[in-house]
Amino acid sequence: MSGTLTLVGVGPGDPELLTLKAVRAISAADIVVFPQKPNEPPLALSIAEQHIHANALRLPVDLPMKVEREPAQLAYDQIAGVIAKHLANGKTVAYLCEGDPLFYGSAMYLIERMPDAKIQIIPGITSLTATASVVGRPLAARNETLKILPAPLPSEKLAMELNNTQSAAIIKVGRHFDRVRDVLKITGHAQNAMIVERATQGEQKITPLLEFASNERPYFSTILCYKGDETWGK
Amino acid sequence: MSGTLTLVGVGPGDPELLTLKAVRAISAADIVVFPQKPNEPPLALSIAEQHIHANALRLPVDLPMKVEREPAQLAYDQIAGVIAKHLANGKTVAYLCEGDPLFYGSAMYLIERMPDAKIQIIPGITSLTATASVVGRPLAARNETLKILPAPLPSEKLAMELNNTQSAAIIKVGRHFDRVRDVLKITGHAQNAMIVERATQGEQKITPLLEFASNERPYFSTILCYKGDETWGK
Repeated sequence: MSGTLTLVGVGPGDPELLTLKAVRAISAADIVVFPQKPNEPPLALSIAEQHIHANALRLPVDLPMKVEREPAQLAYDQIAGVIAKHLANGKTVAYLCEGDPLFYGSAMYLIERMPDAKIQIIPGITSLTATASVVGRPLAARNETLKILPAPLPSEKLAMELNNTQSAAIIKVGRHFDRVRDVLKITGHAQNAMIVERATQGEQKITPLLEFASNERPYFSTILCYKGDETWGK
Repeated sequence: MSGTLTLVGVGPGDPELLTLKAVRAISAADIVVFPQKPNEPPLALSIAEQHIHANALRLPVDLPMKVEREPAQLAYDQIAGVIAKHLANGKTVAYLCEGDPLFYGSAMYLIERMPDAKIQIIPGITSLTATASVVGRPLAARNETLKILPAPLPSEKLAMELNNTQSAAIIKVGRHFDRVRDVLKITGHAQNAMIVERATQGEQKITPLLEFASNERPYFSTILCYKGDETWGK
């Protein structure tokens, strides 16, 4: 394979949060691959769009919205085969990743399918730091532990990890919101927690966790938790 | 205060990992403030330098290299006073932060000293994702917990946090290297751990943890830990 595959972190949503390196890789690509879900505008494409060369081929990876992993894995099988052919023809391929390719990203599914490809990885701004920047409060400082906890984890695991830590970020909140809020109330993290939806995107929304009405559900959101009363817990 | 203070994440070292937003803020600044330690070239300045306006005033914050917190806090007191005067005169001030301002950054010391200032925060690429990108392995995926653990934490705390997790990043390794390596051997994370020094900088060095000679000490480094034998642990 003489071509190069670049996994490009495009950041959380604001097109100005693309790095110079990402812009250069996107502009130089013969083929631009991006994930796409049914009935959702493709976020990664919309962030990068203005930098894509007019003659570049755009290839969506059609990801099904299912809890089971298999249908998505088949989509990655298929796109890996298509990308491999383009690389064999010496093409330059950019795969657009929301946020950062290696921070809970899908890029790993391509990496593991293409052991012989020349792959370059460009880190991106994560939803984690983007969320902190719009709240204006540190994620962690000095010698504090910071835990990234996916909301689908069992409540017992979440509570155990939260009980001995001051700073945490709960990601992938979605339909787990009510359960997670209950856990945070029990562990003492609810009081100062902030929930941020669509950080840096047009419809961004920042809400103290306890001000969410019980029948509301947040979109694409991260909860920042601070236990205690110190400066950054206020 | 009619001026604006922007806390700018300049990323881990590669000047191409500046965001478009950071470049714009740096270029527009009347005054550019940056941390500086004795006998070290100022990293944040060197990353941003080519974008600073020729007429901009450059203001170093001289940070002492001491374990005690007080001398550095006095330096922040002093710079906050200087910045406040410039803001009162309607100036645009950019404070350059290595990595991301709110991910174990010093920006919080300015925020807490300037409650009345108009402050904008621009997130930056962290050393965490930069390290993963040069190793080429995910930090975490799906519903895994990811723990960020500062090396100065007591060994018992490190071991406790590592014992129930697969993925972790040890930051601020420095003089704690030997002790941390011993902890990782006991918890079962040493086998697949990688240590990255100066990620994305000119003198970047990537070494499997167990290949470090016993008398070597790593510089500005992060250890990525993967327990177990799954795909991403190899």
